[in-house]
Amino acid sequence: MGCFDDGSFNVELENGVSSISCEEEEGNNRAVIEDAVKVLLEGLKEDINREGIRKTPFRVAKALREGTRGYRQKVKDIVQGALFPEAGLDDRIGHAGGAGGLVIVRDLDLYSYCESCLLPFQVKCHVGYVPAGQRVLGLSKLSRVSDVFAKRLQEPQRLADEVCSALHQGIKPAGVAIVLQCTHIPFPDTEPVFLDANHQSWFKILVSSGTGVFENKNADEWADFLSLIKFRGVDVENVHTRESSDPCWCPSQSSLSTKVSSKIGPVNHRMITAVASIIKSLGEDPLRDELVGTPSRFVRWLMNFQTSNFDRKLNGFHCGGIDSLNTNGDVNLNDKKLHSEMNLPFWSQCEHHLLPFHGVVHIGYLISGGFNPIGKSLLQKIVHFYGFKLQVQERLTRQIAETISPLLGGDVIVVVEASHTCMISRGIEKFGSSTATIAVLGRFATDLATRASFLQSIPSPTSSERQ
Amino acid sequence: MGCFDDGSFNVELENGVSSISCEEEEGNNRAVIEDAVKVLLEGLKEDINREGIRKTPFRVAKALREGTRGYRQKVKDIVQGALFPEAGLDDRIGHAGGAGGLVIVRDLDLYSYCESCLLPFQVKCHVGYVPAGQRVLGLSKLSRVSDVFAKRLQEPQRLADEVCSALHQGIKPAGVAIVLQCTHIPFPDTEPVFLDANHQSWFKILVSSGTGVFENKNADEWADFLSLIKFRGVDVENVHTRESSDPCWCPSQSSLSTKVSSKIGPVNHRMITAVASIIKSLGEDPLRDELVGTPSRFVRWLMNFQTSNFDRKLNGFHCGGIDSLNTNGDVNLNDKKLHSEMNLPFWSQCEHHLLPFHGVVHIGYLISGGFNPIGKSLLQKIVHFYGFKLQVQERLTRQIAETISPLLGGDVIVVVEASHTCMISRGIEKFGSSTATIAVLGRFATDLATRASFLQSIPSPTSSERQ
Repeated sequence: MGCFDDGSFNVELENGVSSISCEEEEGNNRAVIEDAVKVLLEGLKEDINREGIRKTPFRVAKALREGTRGYRQKVKDIVQGALFPEAGLDDRIGHAGGAGGLVIVRDLDLYSYCESCLLPFQVKCHVGYVPAGQRVLGLSKLSRVSDVFAKRLQEPQRLADEVCSALHQGIKPAGVAIVLQCTHIPFPDTEPVFLDANHQSWFKILVSSGTGVFENKNADEWADFLSLIKFRGVDVENVHTRESSDPCWCPSQSSLSTKVSSKIGPVNHRMITAVASIIKSLGEDPLRDELVGTPSRFVRWLMNFQTSNFDRKLNGFHCGGIDSLNTNGDVNLNDKKLHSEMNLPFWSQCEHHLLPFHGVVHIGYLISGGFNPIGKSLLQKIVHFYGFKLQVQERLTRQIAETISPLLGGDVIVVVEASHTCMISRGIEKFGSSTATIAVLGRFATDLATRASFLQSIPSPTSSERQ
Repeated sequence: MGCFDDGSFNVELENGVSSISCEEEEGNNRAVIEDAVKVLLEGLKEDINREGIRKTPFRVAKALREGTRGYRQKVKDIVQGALFPEAGLDDRIGHAGGAGGLVIVRDLDLYSYCESCLLPFQVKCHVGYVPAGQRVLGLSKLSRVSDVFAKRLQEPQRLADEVCSALHQGIKPAGVAIVLQCTHIPFPDTEPVFLDANHQSWFKILVSSGTGVFENKNADEWADFLSLIKFRGVDVENVHTRESSDPCWCPSQSSLSTKVSSKIGPVNHRMITAVASIIKSLGEDPLRDELVGTPSRFVRWLMNFQTSNFDRKLNGFHCGGIDSLNTNGDVNLNDKKLHSEMNLPFWSQCEHHLLPFHGVVHIGYLISGGFNPIGKSLLQKIVHFYGFKLQVQERLTRQIAETISPLLGGDVIVVVEASHTCMISRGIEKFGSSTATIAVLGRFATDLATRASFLQSIPSPTSSERQ
């Protein structure tokens, strides 16, 4: 924990990484990213002049520069002027206030970029420090300093260590403690991921870091800190400090993921070079050990969403038989029967921001004598087929409805519920938000009672889905 | 619902309220607020040169201008360039995509300022629209437009109506629907508020607004919209549209609150004039009907936290007897007994931002033969005494510990858990965050087992407290 030498952190505090802040350089850096994104879109076989994605290079460049603004921020600027004199105990035995009174800020929602694959990952940050020298820090600064390091290409343990050391340098307290709960979306290389609507296969890690009195993880101060975050739902038994020998947490580096990556097809070197130029323009060294393989891993992720990925994703679509029919959702509606398939998971990529969105699809349809219900696995294949593209949720919803409608006699309703990474990791940072879209065909368009019957049967999300 | 005439909204879309955006005017407006805040601090009998509050006028001015930036934002700028062509259904009966496919964004966390008392209130916003003309809006814009109107002095129904009408003008859809869940902190004028750790006495209201196909609240489209937010925990049965005859929701205007306000003492006209000048500098008309009484209501709130408010808040402190002793929390520790009082609610005002923070205090102490336990109501009075000031949480924690320590033999632990409005309504907007501070005296400072025993007995917050 906190094993950084002071020298490197003085540099950090002085000037972030380097003082590239003038408008011209910002413009140049954005232009580099825009050019690179055009290469990526072409690699995905998209028409870069199509209206929906014409401005995508601009949006991606803006979002990426903002999302990595931590490289250009100085901890010193944030902490300065926010240290307040605060008395400790007068002459009693003990600790309180500005001399030893532990301060903790819990449940700070942050977003960071995975240095291994360039995808955003979610962080719930708990930060504490023990004041010394009769000085306390304005509470919001604990969040702002954490965000300086989250807004970079990161790895959870390094993020924890850097926040810890920077706060220690900035506040000069008796010690700083950090616990991070990090969540990484899975790579869509393996089938099991997609049959999992409950985020069971999401990659989660709990890391900690400590300086000063928190340097030793058996210290009494750690017991206090963990007690005070435990009843906020943190499984403190599982807090661990990552060892240098631990494998990388990013799913892009798991052996399974590497094995199936050959399905993606031959590597597109132009795309890889483009991603390397993006990394450089963010202020990072693309040759840093942890970043060398990042461009190819990001391209591998992206290639899941190429427009012509028909064969891989839809194998068995046209000849798909009726399998594992779930009749639990059947309701009799006069002559026709309402069938429903709930919670079909999907993954997609927002064409406006090149960021993932994911969620579940609920499908309802009426069938009479002449038609048979469609099996769940065929519906799931159709959902994946339209998911694995550059998409918008409205179109995905319509396309699924239009595809299944002729197979089923025309009375179809489709509801898509999703979380959009672009709503969370970019500008507006609306962590708890979710979207719902709906398509209604045939009788569902005109018969309110039938539609309501389906909508009311949509199950509530579990708490893990709501996260 | 949506009963605004188009004319007024064209003006809104064109130029917000008026084009006061140059740096000089911004500087002037901030200076007006800073001067006004100095008057308020003096009215609270504070030394405006004390280090903790020396920069408070600067911080309040910055936060207030940012928090009301909606007056200077144009909906047109946000929506323009974010409308994307999106096909509807080809030639089938029904609605989907860019022609009739309902789009909903749920659970947008926003903050607004109550026009009746100037305190921030929390908003959970659900917004939907039915696309028309084969065009859809970028999802994040629904959040950004909602925020333009939230970042003003508001009242829930007007906020809903304004967002609705602005989106309708901006997107030209078939209709727009809004449901807002608004929460207002109570005024600390009445005792019951403070014995309520579960936010039961918080003021909550659920309002809705609709345009186009949502104009009629019995329309089928409303049924769809409500179905799709219902399973996110919205009690749709209680959605109501406020009538013009309804009383104002703000607790500052309740008859009870008005009755007890005489306790605050004579009105300070200098303070009231100062608040009126703040309202004007935000770009509002202090003579608008709904704002005429706002300065005196805000001053009434603020005067709860004047430094010399000793008599009102601490009556009975020195002569306080031992009452309603709760012995459930007693644990034997060798010769001494651990007593604890959990979840004593408190209210305070952050001296850095003049914004409320509130939460609960947990107190533990060891007593042996010579001392008697302190009654809960006396502890509660001590907590309120130190709460009702301009404060920082670290100091509040220390002061409570120092006060009760000599009464109890010296072995005392105090934990304060709080939500800070300044962490949520200002810049960093960390909605779920909470803080914990701790003071340990006597044996609690040295005996880890005793300390851990107390910390582990702190009850988990209920879900309503976590909100």
